[in-house]
Amino acid sequence: MNETAVDFTVPGSVGVVTPRRVLIDTPLPLDCGRTLPRHELMVETYGTLNAQRSNAVLICHALSGDHHAAGLHHVDDRKAGWWDNCIGPGKPIDTRRYYVVALNNLGGCKGSTGPSSINPDTGAPYGPDFPLLTVRDWVRSQALLADALGIGRWAAVVGGSLGGMQVMQWAIDLPERVANAVVIASAPQLSAQNIAFNEIARQAILSDPDFHGGRFYEHGVVPSRGLMLARMIGHITYLSDAAMRAKFGNDLREPTPSFNFDVEFEVESYLRYQGQAFVDRFDANTYLLMTKALDYFDPARDYGDRLDAAFRHAQARFLVIAFSSDWRFSPARSREIVKALVDADRDVSYALIESQLGHDDFLMPIPQYHDVLRGYLARVADELEARA
Amino acid sequence: MNETAVDFTVPGSVGVVTPRRVLIDTPLPLDCGRTLPRHELMVETYGTLNAQRSNAVLICHALSGDHHAAGLHHVDDRKAGWWDNCIGPGKPIDTRRYYVVALNNLGGCKGSTGPSSINPDTGAPYGPDFPLLTVRDWVRSQALLADALGIGRWAAVVGGSLGGMQVMQWAIDLPERVANAVVIASAPQLSAQNIAFNEIARQAILSDPDFHGGRFYEHGVVPSRGLMLARMIGHITYLSDAAMRAKFGNDLREPTPSFNFDVEFEVESYLRYQGQAFVDRFDANTYLLMTKALDYFDPARDYGDRLDAAFRHAQARFLVIAFSSDWRFSPARSREIVKALVDADRDVSYALIESQLGHDDFLMPIPQYHDVLRGYLARVADELEARA
Repeated sequence: MNETAVDFTVPGSVGVVTPRRVLIDTPLPLDCGRTLPRHELMVETYGTLNAQRSNAVLICHALSGDHHAAGLHHVDDRKAGWWDNCIGPGKPIDTRRYYVVALNNLGGCKGSTGPSSINPDTGAPYGPDFPLLTVRDWVRSQALLADALGIGRWAAVVGGSLGGMQVMQWAIDLPERVANAVVIASAPQLSAQNIAFNEIARQAILSDPDFHGGRFYEHGVVPSRGLMLARMIGHITYLSDAAMRAKFGNDLREPTPSFNFDVEFEVESYLRYQGQAFVDRFDANTYLLMTKALDYFDPARDYGDRLDAAFRHAQARFLVIAFSSDWRFSPARSREIVKALVDADRDVSYALIESQLGHDDFLMPIPQYHDVLRGYLARVADELEARA
Repeated sequence: MNETAVDFTVPGSVGVVTPRRVLIDTPLPLDCGRTLPRHELMVETYGTLNAQRSNAVLICHALSGDHHAAGLHHVDDRKAGWWDNCIGPGKPIDTRRYYVVALNNLGGCKGSTGPSSINPDTGAPYGPDFPLLTVRDWVRSQALLADALGIGRWAAVVGGSLGGMQVMQWAIDLPERVANAVVIASAPQLSAQNIAFNEIARQAILSDPDFHGGRFYEHGVVPSRGLMLARMIGHITYLSDAAMRAKFGNDLREPTPSFNFDVEFEVESYLRYQGQAFVDRFDANTYLLMTKALDYFDPARDYGDRLDAAFRHAQARFLVIAFSSDWRFSPARSREIVKALVDADRDVSYALIESQLGHDDFLMPIPQYHDVLRGYLARVADELEARA
């Protein structure tokens, strides 16, 4: 996930924002059987919570996202939050009407409690002692955050990719707390191919001699080769073949080959750069944890492998959005979600967005996409404000 | 590429075959600018060369193939050659009518001169001093082999995937020596996505500390982690998403997750097994060389980026075969080849085979596929025999 360059000629920035650390002092039982006695979440909020506390929107992040979804941390920041094109005054998630909450999930590496945090029992980073998590665990943690913020029911829970999985799990597990569920570029369960990509990414990290069984912090190293490879593998799945061709071409940079292993094609340069940049900003244990949460996601499992049975518990209205060029979580996967919702007699809108880039399109300001999101959330806000 | 289990209930085996080593003592100029004064190729032949020397068929192998294309090396072998289902008496490439030549390409690791061979100048394995090769280099080397075998013109040159690229290059570079060109599951040039997969595979190998800059032989180790990852990445591209789902499912092996990094899904087990098995039978430097040859392949480059201009030199009749489920080299890539051949007024037949497995289908005995190949090659043999 790339951060978005700030375009100061466009109005609508939430401006400079300050993240805050929220201590969740309530024990959190996890699917693995362990309980975290307390944990901290890094949070940003944009807009104002109304008197009825009814206009809150939760943003669930994807694999490498965090709490910095919009605005700048400093006036001279060159990059804004990862979904700045979508969140702000006058933007599809309109901060003039909504109180928007973004967090770094439990297990993350941007300040929330995770594998790189200090384990109070040992005084050293958790590393491999940090529990593996599920999307259900994240929903439980986010519900405790909602309690801490005094939010009983979200006007909307919104997320793309792995974020969309959290949205579905919220609607199933805590139906009375979600009025609208916006599921973008997601899937009801990983395919075997999705799992295969994750497994290779994990093996790249786990087999890096600098991984040290997850205790690399204490060795003063990071498994940079493994994490770089993992990120490169991910990037292939974020872009469509056509987008790669359009973006990089497939011709040699020089008229003749160099006959060595230097960069010879633009796509090689791009992947190496993206891989290296990721090593500087992400934690390998968190990456492993995130891929496992993806693999484990399967809300139908608790309902006899029937997704419609799972969705019968939901009370939310759903908006499901898919992108034509996405081959990681293709439109067919979104249609599975829509079909299960229809079979469960739920209220669902579905939009297929014509797109070029691939999975990454869910982060792009595609006009048709933003119009759908803007229109849906404007109607929700109209209803809220009429009721207030 | 998996070897095929021998089914002794099916007639048509070429039986026990003995590979032989052919010394090519003629200097071989390479595209990189270097010249190999001599090289050796491992070769197997099946069937009998006729008096006119007109019934020879060359089999060009793909990334991990070799000279052992059919039959057994020992009566108690459990596995036959990699294309045993297609080559033999009564099979599509019928050894009762054709003299079939299979080789391990220059740069390979199954006995032909390659990076793991001893460099006569140093007495140590070549390793990184072995030149990177192109498909054109292989065609030159194979032409010297044809000379050594007394074959002036091939009745057919046949290959799938990277093998199909050699077939095209043969038809373009040495038109008078190819009567029929059978191009299976191939592409006229890699896509940016294809190159990206290769680049990640290479980085996995190059970044393995046991690679030692390609001189791992002298350290008594192999870059097993890197080579394993490279093979796992390859395998994802050989199988369709649907085939992976059909073959492995995407449910947990146990009812609940284990919350560790052990194998939890069948596809993980498959990939780890395939990766490990490959380490035991393949050379990392050869793998690097093969991926580079793939990346460099672009016969249009010498003809103003016009593939049809390249094909105007060809004299062969072409048979192009694609598989519906192949996303590595999709049917669209084969249609590019067909279109260029039509634009160049060449004689071309095209077959799109309905298939399930993905790229690996070119190795499978799919009836429609084998019927097309059998029919085409039977007509060629009929003509040859009528002329004899």
